[in-house]
Amino acid sequence: MIEDKNQQRTQLSDLGEFGLIDHLTENFKIKQSSTIKGIGDDAAVLEFKNKKIVVTTDLLLEGIHFDLSYMPLKHLGYKAIVVNLSDVYAMHANPTQVTVSIAVSNRFPLEALEDLYAGIETAANIYNVDVVGGDTTSSNTGLLISVTAIGEVESNNEVYRNGAKPNDLLVVSGDLGAAYMGLQVLEREKEVYKVNPNSQPDLEPYSYIIERQLKPEARKDIVKLLNDLNVKPTSMIDISDGLSSEIIHLCKQSKVGCDLYEDKIPLDPQVISTCEEFNIDSTTVALNGGEDYELLFTISQDDFLKIKANPNLSIIGHIKEEREGMHLVTRAETRIPIKAQGWKNFND
Amino acid sequence: MIEDKNQQRTQLSDLGEFGLIDHLTENFKIKQSSTIKGIGDDAAVLEFKNKKIVVTTDLLLEGIHFDLSYMPLKHLGYKAIVVNLSDVYAMHANPTQVTVSIAVSNRFPLEALEDLYAGIETAANIYNVDVVGGDTTSSNTGLLISVTAIGEVESNNEVYRNGAKPNDLLVVSGDLGAAYMGLQVLEREKEVYKVNPNSQPDLEPYSYIIERQLKPEARKDIVKLLNDLNVKPTSMIDISDGLSSEIIHLCKQSKVGCDLYEDKIPLDPQVISTCEEFNIDSTTVALNGGEDYELLFTISQDDFLKIKANPNLSIIGHIKEEREGMHLVTRAETRIPIKAQGWKNFND
Repeated sequence: MIEDKNQQRTQLSDLGEFGLIDHLTENFKIKQSSTIKGIGDDAAVLEFKNKKIVVTTDLLLEGIHFDLSYMPLKHLGYKAIVVNLSDVYAMHANPTQVTVSIAVSNRFPLEALEDLYAGIETAANIYNVDVVGGDTTSSNTGLLISVTAIGEVESNNEVYRNGAKPNDLLVVSGDLGAAYMGLQVLEREKEVYKVNPNSQPDLEPYSYIIERQLKPEARKDIVKLLNDLNVKPTSMIDISDGLSSEIIHLCKQSKVGCDLYEDKIPLDPQVISTCEEFNIDSTTVALNGGEDYELLFTISQDDFLKIKANPNLSIIGHIKEEREGMHLVTRAETRIPIKAQGWKNFND
Repeated sequence: MIEDKNQQRTQLSDLGEFGLIDHLTENFKIKQSSTIKGIGDDAAVLEFKNKKIVVTTDLLLEGIHFDLSYMPLKHLGYKAIVVNLSDVYAMHANPTQVTVSIAVSNRFPLEALEDLYAGIETAANIYNVDVVGGDTTSSNTGLLISVTAIGEVESNNEVYRNGAKPNDLLVVSGDLGAAYMGLQVLEREKEVYKVNPNSQPDLEPYSYIIERQLKPEARKDIVKLLNDLNVKPTSMIDISDGLSSEIIHLCKQSKVGCDLYEDKIPLDPQVISTCEEFNIDSTTVALNGGEDYELLFTISQDDFLKIKANPNLSIIGHIKEEREGMHLVTRAETRIPIKAQGWKNFND
């Protein structure tokens, strides 16, 4: 769908390793005072003085995590950064640096990597992080991106998964399930395209959910908002695998239970209409869809008034004693145990 | 060569993602006081107080960087850590944490990953680093390992590539070319094995060079030695791509030239004898072979007496003005410009 047969193609073998890294990162500017030395030595050198740092890493593989038939490379570069920064925000920290390693086969011309790095650069600028290192190698198959993100947090201000207490409120930012439904639309259009390459799909009714899939954002605004409101969550996690999986992580590590109210789960109207079109239950999508990159956190009831009217935040439940278990309270007021969906990649 | 048909095979799909990570890292102990929180949250939390930190990352791909027909998985895990730690030592820093991400296809049983992680754990114990994070995902093809290493260094004690000055001495640790010649032997035995699977190769005469290929070590002793001797190098780099490539990096970033003396390049007797057997020039192997993971550095002539008798260190040349260029001075006393071999992976 996105291939342009007339594009310029420079073979990667025309550049050496050093030429390639230099070329792809030459426009990258250092923005953080903690970056003493970025790309260009055996290692980057950073200095954080009295802050703690957080470190997180993710792999993205072609054919597993993304499909280049509908994922533009610039978006992919952007998303690869964002999904890691989301983990930094989930620690109540602010991201400062990333390293980006790629493995790429010869079928990618230099111009494709320039698009990928343009997306990386855009994300680095928007989120104010420095690209301080990485590795570039050839691959026998597809494209792989490995990102490690580093962030800083004032000592004792970090938030773990394990601090939720009974009676805390369970809060989520934004809305859920959109990225998953965006993926369903893109997969459907890919099948249509295979049958009729001249078809011109009207994706306008799906613009929000497709953007959530192709160009997600990490909630840097929430960390700032919570600081401005003087609310420190008791626990926090980002929603990458789906709400139910993240609730289970949070409750298990905090040794608590919870009630989650189905009618409180925030859904965008496009998610609801697209779920109807696909005949999928929207609650199931929100619970198990994944890739939302919203923040799920718990706060003390004392902080209720500070956040209750905020349009970016939804109170979706509350924490209970561990022995009471984790339940979804449905619209019909039945209580269903929340179950892990596990991880499906190895079952493919 | 290493496959055992009777080995136990547990399918990865029998465990979820969380089960897999928990299982593989359950024995890993935290050793560094700077590790506040390791595996188990959105990100690791570290605290270095008034030290600087260094960050480096490397990708290792099956079929590009390693061949599982002669690389045991335990050795591979060990090597994946060591090659990253070598970059940390090359900054004159001490490694403290690593993150390890793997992508793996279903053809690997759980027991294979246990071997891989046993090697990772061994390296982490020997080099006193904590495994604080990572990602585990499935792959459509082979095995991939992405490691990010973090180290600490007293502020202003780090050593860059760009500090070499004219008249400085050029020094290298250990000996060169062994890992490359070990690879040649292993590749030859693989071809023999293909023709005759019952052949029993006698690898005893190649034990040192094969170990240098399969289980290299990073030179943590050199950073300690230099500190003990009160010698701070003016520049330093690790030798991963070959001596000539690293000398060029160091000279270009320092804006200097150099004379490198062929007869001073340290070679193990097994390298010399195996080069004769393969009819390869041993100087070419030392200059371009790669994967030695020795340290190349420059010191002021004032420090000459402190290091001259040390059996771990060889003075192989000296730094000159940039306009004088970079030359190899051969045994026949001819002067040959040192050239970059570039990076060959993309030409495959």
